[in-house]
Amino acid sequence: MARRDAAPVHPPKHQHAEARKGVWLAGVHAVTMALENPNRTFLRILATADAARSHEKVLKARSPVGVEIVAKTEIERQLPAGSVHQGLAAFVDFLPPIHLDELIETAQSRADAVIVVLDQVTDPHNVGAILRSAAAFGALGVVVPDRHAPEETTALAKSASGALERMPLVRVTNLARALDDLKAGGFWICGLAADAPQTLAQAKLSGKIALAFGAEGEGLRRLTRETCDMMVRLPMTDEMESLNVSNAAAIALYEFVRLR
Amino acid sequence: MARRDAAPVHPPKHQHAEARKGVWLAGVHAVTMALENPNRTFLRILATADAARSHEKVLKARSPVGVEIVAKTEIERQLPAGSVHQGLAAFVDFLPPIHLDELIETAQSRADAVIVVLDQVTDPHNVGAILRSAAAFGALGVVVPDRHAPEETTALAKSASGALERMPLVRVTNLARALDDLKAGGFWICGLAADAPQTLAQAKLSGKIALAFGAEGEGLRRLTRETCDMMVRLPMTDEMESLNVSNAAAIALYEFVRLR
Repeated sequence: MARRDAAPVHPPKHQHAEARKGVWLAGVHAVTMALENPNRTFLRILATADAARSHEKVLKARSPVGVEIVAKTEIERQLPAGSVHQGLAAFVDFLPPIHLDELIETAQSRADAVIVVLDQVTDPHNVGAILRSAAAFGALGVVVPDRHAPEETTALAKSASGALERMPLVRVTNLARALDDLKAGGFWICGLAADAPQTLAQAKLSGKIALAFGAEGEGLRRLTRETCDMMVRLPMTDEMESLNVSNAAAIALYEFVRLR
Repeated sequence: MARRDAAPVHPPKHQHAEARKGVWLAGVHAVTMALENPNRTFLRILATADAARSHEKVLKARSPVGVEIVAKTEIERQLPAGSVHQGLAAFVDFLPPIHLDELIETAQSRADAVIVVLDQVTDPHNVGAILRSAAAFGALGVVVPDRHAPEETTALAKSASGALERMPLVRVTNLARALDDLKAGGFWICGLAADAPQTLAQAKLSGKIALAFGAEGEGLRRLTRETCDMMVRLPMTDEMESLNVSNAAAIALYEFVRLR
């Protein structure tokens, strides 16, 4: 796993934006997996009496700050409207940035490795679900362009269901340059597009692969597409133009693991 | 494709609930694919001047009601907060219910067929994304328990990206009985669970298959699980307990199609 303590070369967007002091994590998975992450700094932990009892062990063993026992309504007052919290929420610092070089270095010692590249996928639910699939299928990290990707928010962390604590989310200022860096590091860039000549299974992906996905509708941008070593498609009917991008990413990650 | 004009045996929940007169569809895919569905009754269509121009052809050819050219803010006033609408929205009747027997009858003439069964998957975004994957991979339909599944809402239709118009969403009152009906119709019931003895790929699914997915966290209920003919798992690392349910469903549907 990449180190998280290296000096940030591409500081994340929130450091440029006006003072966001941290992010609220909501729900059992997001909070308990954050407690297991040594790189996560906790500022506050709120729990209902019930949730504090149910998760007493992990909260006692790990909590670096005291747990505030509060009413459900107080938790809801802190979170974005509609957040599902299961009686547990924590206000935490943003994670320290991770540089792409760290992922490439980690891959050096491996025969097979997969990294996910998202070209302007902006929906936090999709990025969260992709982090979760990436962790489930052993990817090294998820790479996004800093200016066209969601920030680390409650919704993203919730959809990631704890994966944000384990799966490096690497923000880069220039995606085309990041793809060149991946190539120089021994990665093949494989883009997904509905009009690709071969299917994902036909491509028999192996070695070091960066899987590139574009925004729904638009797909990969021209420059990104031109940088790809190969393009593949999913075997779909004519009924639908495209899949949800997190569903497409899950399938591609599964296919890579299935062939191992 | 199953007919949509049969008498409803299991009327959907919204017919029991107090007067919901219809549903707002938002966005280009949801509205234009609804216009192509002869079973969809339109009550109103709202478009910004820009959107009306961009989609003039389909709106003119198909619109059964006049298109109201309105400001973006008027569209937003009608829709649930935060709906992405791309300048296009329509107020429509609910779709006529579809009975499970119709799907089973459609499958009679086929050697291979796949149906998705959702055991208490309640998030409309997940059910919408699953409808979309089911359409993309040629499933016959998606079966849900009427009392533990989302209604036909703006959010569900938006996540389905038009698939709600093409993929039968069958509501049943008793899921265990529906699984028995599927078995009697020649379907094997294949449940997904993290602790299953064999992987999805090892099971080499063929013939008529009903893929059953439980709610995230809880998984399939005991009774549903006992009704399954086989259980399979996805080949995942120890990093994550589970995938997002729509991602798991997309992978299973892909795997079924890959083996054809």
